[in-house]
Amino acid sequence: MAKKNDLVIRAAKGEQVERTPVWLMRQAGRVLPEYREVRAKMGGFKQLVETPEFACEVTIQPVDILGVDAAIIFSDILVIPEAMGLPYQMIEAKGPWFEKTIKTVDDIAKLKIAEPEDLHYVMDAIKLTKKELNGRVPLIGFAGAPWTIFSYMIEGSGSKTFSKAKKFLYTQPELAHVLLQKITDSTINYLKGQIAAGADMLQLFDSWAGVLSPAQYDEFALKYISQICDAVSEVPFTVFAKDAHFARKKMGQLSCDTIGLDWTMDIAESRALIGSNKTLQGNMDPCLLYSDFETIKKETKKMLNQFGAHRHIANLGHGLYPDLEVDKVKCFIDTIQEFRF
Amino acid sequence: MAKKNDLVIRAAKGEQVERTPVWLMRQAGRVLPEYREVRAKMGGFKQLVETPEFACEVTIQPVDILGVDAAIIFSDILVIPEAMGLPYQMIEAKGPWFEKTIKTVDDIAKLKIAEPEDLHYVMDAIKLTKKELNGRVPLIGFAGAPWTIFSYMIEGSGSKTFSKAKKFLYTQPELAHVLLQKITDSTINYLKGQIAAGADMLQLFDSWAGVLSPAQYDEFALKYISQICDAVSEVPFTVFAKDAHFARKKMGQLSCDTIGLDWTMDIAESRALIGSNKTLQGNMDPCLLYSDFETIKKETKKMLNQFGAHRHIANLGHGLYPDLEVDKVKCFIDTIQEFRF
Repeated sequence: MAKKNDLVIRAAKGEQVERTPVWLMRQAGRVLPEYREVRAKMGGFKQLVETPEFACEVTIQPVDILGVDAAIIFSDILVIPEAMGLPYQMIEAKGPWFEKTIKTVDDIAKLKIAEPEDLHYVMDAIKLTKKELNGRVPLIGFAGAPWTIFSYMIEGSGSKTFSKAKKFLYTQPELAHVLLQKITDSTINYLKGQIAAGADMLQLFDSWAGVLSPAQYDEFALKYISQICDAVSEVPFTVFAKDAHFARKKMGQLSCDTIGLDWTMDIAESRALIGSNKTLQGNMDPCLLYSDFETIKKETKKMLNQFGAHRHIANLGHGLYPDLEVDKVKCFIDTIQEFRF
Repeated sequence: MAKKNDLVIRAAKGEQVERTPVWLMRQAGRVLPEYREVRAKMGGFKQLVETPEFACEVTIQPVDILGVDAAIIFSDILVIPEAMGLPYQMIEAKGPWFEKTIKTVDDIAKLKIAEPEDLHYVMDAIKLTKKELNGRVPLIGFAGAPWTIFSYMIEGSGSKTFSKAKKFLYTQPELAHVLLQKITDSTINYLKGQIAAGADMLQLFDSWAGVLSPAQYDEFALKYISQICDAVSEVPFTVFAKDAHFARKKMGQLSCDTIGLDWTMDIAESRALIGSNKTLQGNMDPCLLYSDFETIKKETKKMLNQFGAHRHIANLGHGLYPDLEVDKVKCFIDTIQEFRF
């Protein structure tokens, strides 16, 4: 058995680490030619997500090729609305699309609370990946945060303003809460299932956090994130709410271990707002990886120094962009792994 | 001559006002049926922008129909790249599109510094509108901030990540500065021309501020905004950098009068960061105007109380969405104009 690398787990718990660990959002993805090969063979993104052998294969690719300190199960946040009764398609170069969206109280009543068995293919992929990883690095499970999932269920696709979803919050707040609670209950079941299947850590992604006002974010997003953090306490838990700069102080009060930062969030300011009891994850601008090797090294070291030696898990402030070069991505990772305070 | 309403000007200067003034970004636009009528007659957005009589007509529509306390000249931030030598088309339901974009040092060398006469149709529209307004309310002129204009000139259109423009900053920073300086010089000429034509106030829109890191925003955006604020000091000046939450403290140091806030920026926090010497403009979530009249009134009053009686110009935190109902927009405006501290 390979030597166990548990740096990410220890950093999340606030324990001493020999060096800062690193993994990357979307590390299993189009940036790797090996991923594109498997995906071409499978015919599409959803087939990949739904076939445990292939999900396992692409989950492990970045561990082998990039040498990251954690794997994250290859899946999609939209498996939850699907398991609740709203199927979706992933349209090439366009993104997700739901034929049916939520409009009325009846639409919400018809949704089921998802159970782990509704998402058996994710559980199987986690089990298989854990076996194949053989303890090399921790395996991260994940889900979308309720507000982001809600947005997709109302909008039916991505959006610049998410004005349909926000209109729903303003015009039918009670009904919004009913739907958000159903999503939350489904998400808790789902994440508990992921732990049972072997996930060593969990992350919640609130991709559309940044379109809400601070007051709406408290009422319609943080409230449910808080429920999830409280209900799922068996493994280290990370919350990443992109663009929710206004919520950092309150996120410091969540019962989670790690808060993800995007690159617009100043590191020292975020530490002051969030407090010293949380590990911070992030937060390099993915576009840095377009620059030359020297600039990547310089900026990466600057970031490491700003975060300091403890309570930091290095990552980007967003997912990898598909057109980044693997060598540049590797340079970012190597710089972090070779750095010593 | 109608009674002169100079509330917006006085609020910008920090003078006492009897009540909080209000205008709305995109108040001259698709939300008004009267606008859609003129636009249909003209055949398109650019024809409207380039025909002073019609630009004047739609600029005054919201003063007549909505009763706002200021008019803003109907135009487009992309007239600047066009005047510099990069023409664009406005494609229905898609947005702006540039056939030619900036890639090399030669592309930049070929660009001219725009002069007011290159944009004579804007100057004519301002002159005509001033005459037609006859002092009823102040007329606001505007331009895009250099980073936002730069982004369009590199990307050639809107973008989710602006990764081409950001890649340019990381890979060719010196060249980026050459282009940003050319845009800045053109913008200063343009804004001075607008003052000469009669603009009573000016606003700079940095629509894509939020995709940059705090450090890049300092280097590639604030530096040029600061130059413009210093060069154009004849009339009250507003800077609105959407999503630039991280730059609020530094924006408090600009030599402008007013800072625009979006709805993700907490009002008390923004006031503390920006200081007491600036007027704040904003910052209601446009989606509030989807809700019922009672909620609109309640939330609007809450906003007014949070900003306080002085140094506030009420507005939305972004432009009006085209599918909002005029009655709801009117309710927002009326609530502000009827409110007394």
